[in-house]
Amino acid sequence: MEHIADRLVKSIKDKKSPIVIGLDPVYENLPTCIKSKYSQDIDGAAQAFLEFGNAIIDAVCDIVPAIKPQSAFYELLGYRGVKAMEKSVAYAKSKGLIIIDDSKRGDIGNTSKAYAEAHIGSFAIDGKCIREADSEFMTVSPFLGLDGVQPFVEAAKRNNKGAFVLVRTSNPASALVQSALTEAGKTVSAELAEYVAEEASKNLGIMGYSSIGAVVGATYPAEAKAFREVMRQSFFLVPGYGAQGATAKDIVPFFNPDGLGALINASRSVIYAYKNTCSDDCSTDELKDVTRAAAEVMHDDIYGELRNSFKNLVY
Amino acid sequence: MEHIADRLVKSIKDKKSPIVIGLDPVYENLPTCIKSKYSQDIDGAAQAFLEFGNAIIDAVCDIVPAIKPQSAFYELLGYRGVKAMEKSVAYAKSKGLIIIDDSKRGDIGNTSKAYAEAHIGSFAIDGKCIREADSEFMTVSPFLGLDGVQPFVEAAKRNNKGAFVLVRTSNPASALVQSALTEAGKTVSAELAEYVAEEASKNLGIMGYSSIGAVVGATYPAEAKAFREVMRQSFFLVPGYGAQGATAKDIVPFFNPDGLGALINASRSVIYAYKNTCSDDCSTDELKDVTRAAAEVMHDDIYGELRNSFKNLVY
Repeated sequence: MEHIADRLVKSIKDKKSPIVIGLDPVYENLPTCIKSKYSQDIDGAAQAFLEFGNAIIDAVCDIVPAIKPQSAFYELLGYRGVKAMEKSVAYAKSKGLIIIDDSKRGDIGNTSKAYAEAHIGSFAIDGKCIREADSEFMTVSPFLGLDGVQPFVEAAKRNNKGAFVLVRTSNPASALVQSALTEAGKTVSAELAEYVAEEASKNLGIMGYSSIGAVVGATYPAEAKAFREVMRQSFFLVPGYGAQGATAKDIVPFFNPDGLGALINASRSVIYAYKNTCSDDCSTDELKDVTRAAAEVMHDDIYGELRNSFKNLVY
Repeated sequence: MEHIADRLVKSIKDKKSPIVIGLDPVYENLPTCIKSKYSQDIDGAAQAFLEFGNAIIDAVCDIVPAIKPQSAFYELLGYRGVKAMEKSVAYAKSKGLIIIDDSKRGDIGNTSKAYAEAHIGSFAIDGKCIREADSEFMTVSPFLGLDGVQPFVEAAKRNNKGAFVLVRTSNPASALVQSALTEAGKTVSAELAEYVAEEASKNLGIMGYSSIGAVVGATYPAEAKAFREVMRQSFFLVPGYGAQGATAKDIVPFFNPDGLGALINASRSVIYAYKNTCSDDCSTDELKDVTRAAAEVMHDDIYGELRNSFKNLVY
């Protein structure tokens, strides 16, 4: 079976695009053309989330290798929202996209293992699989320590899936925990980076990359080079471009010189682009066109900057 | 409306019980009397989780003030598992129990806000509430920093609900992140404790306690006194008693001298007690009896120790 890290590398090269689009459905922000089709109740909201997500997927599926549904927004609708997310994930998979389940789960022992199998694994009765998660990657929160992260890494290896461990997040107050100094005199982020590098080295595809990666926020470009040197074989999932303020220039140091090793995420700036250019009663086709155009602008911005910066870009 | 912290205090006093039972449904561990009723597929597993959870709730609802469903185990069954958890929560609520949703969510900004409203809040369209979460408390992971925790605290205040922020967890490797030193020269746990204390002081019930609390593991009794001094008005949610090794003596320093301020959790040692005493084909009534007996043993152990230790116990 093809290693999931190889599939990710190939998809980035094929589409010439190291970009992820975040699915962050917020009811108030959905266009009227979608909301007006459904009842104003919890079932109607879940249907609207699903249709909106699928429209975004249609719009970007041949421009980007991956999408990143944000579970928080789906959970807001309870189990019906979770069901809508599962359906969107299945739809994205049918369109050839790689799915990064941005659920930032984290616990210890068997609880972490259950989260991992729930999101990037499967559930079996008497050895017979009765449910399989469609997502290929998930994000993992390491607050409880490495014994809490290890079950996610093991599930990723066991299931040919992947995990992005939160190492340095893009928000202003991330330093409190992430820049604190461990017993070894390193920052928490630095220790986590070493752990990710070690686990990545044990789980490589034939193209030299691992499916054990890190979340490293684009808002800290100064630290990117150091993280890149430690985690050479890992992909970074990089939030912070677009609505959070980072530019294409800012994200260059997150990549290896081959133009691989980073996935730049944008959510609101692409999926709600329609608000800047369309009237609220735009059609679904117009929504898709505008979303696609916004994703293309992002693509050209980032791909252009990578071509300028790296002579040995492999795509 | 009664402040949720006052309701918690009253319920502890009424039941003379500062105890929480964790709902950790694991299919292999469920008794045959429940599993055999349902098909061996995902719907059947979800029904078995629900029936098992409700049996536990029946068994302990007049001995303990609260239950703590662990979302990881439910998520393993996908949206059907989430639905089963929602139904168990509603059932527990109907039995007068307070519910602590142990989902350890954590993100930033609007994403944290969505998680908070999903688990201890509501979802509205045009100002009309169309879904309300039944849980009173949730656990919150602070890896991303205090700007990521604040939306949970604000939602708790807005909705008369509560949050337990992870401050010091019970697992062996928790020190890596939680004992790291911040810029101010304090441990991450100590800084989080100060934050919790500050937010608690702004959200007090008339009985002197707050619904903004902390998760502090029973496996670190030496630190309990210091945390207790900082977070006088907060409840501690204390995992680690029972299966994880902490004894009743160990958990005394987690309480204030009034016998309040801590909720001791046990999960496996109570909900799977039937495995030690029953044959696998026990009846549901036997399951309930054994579970109830295990909860009573735990209650007597802890309540006895508190009565020995505190002259001014208020219950």
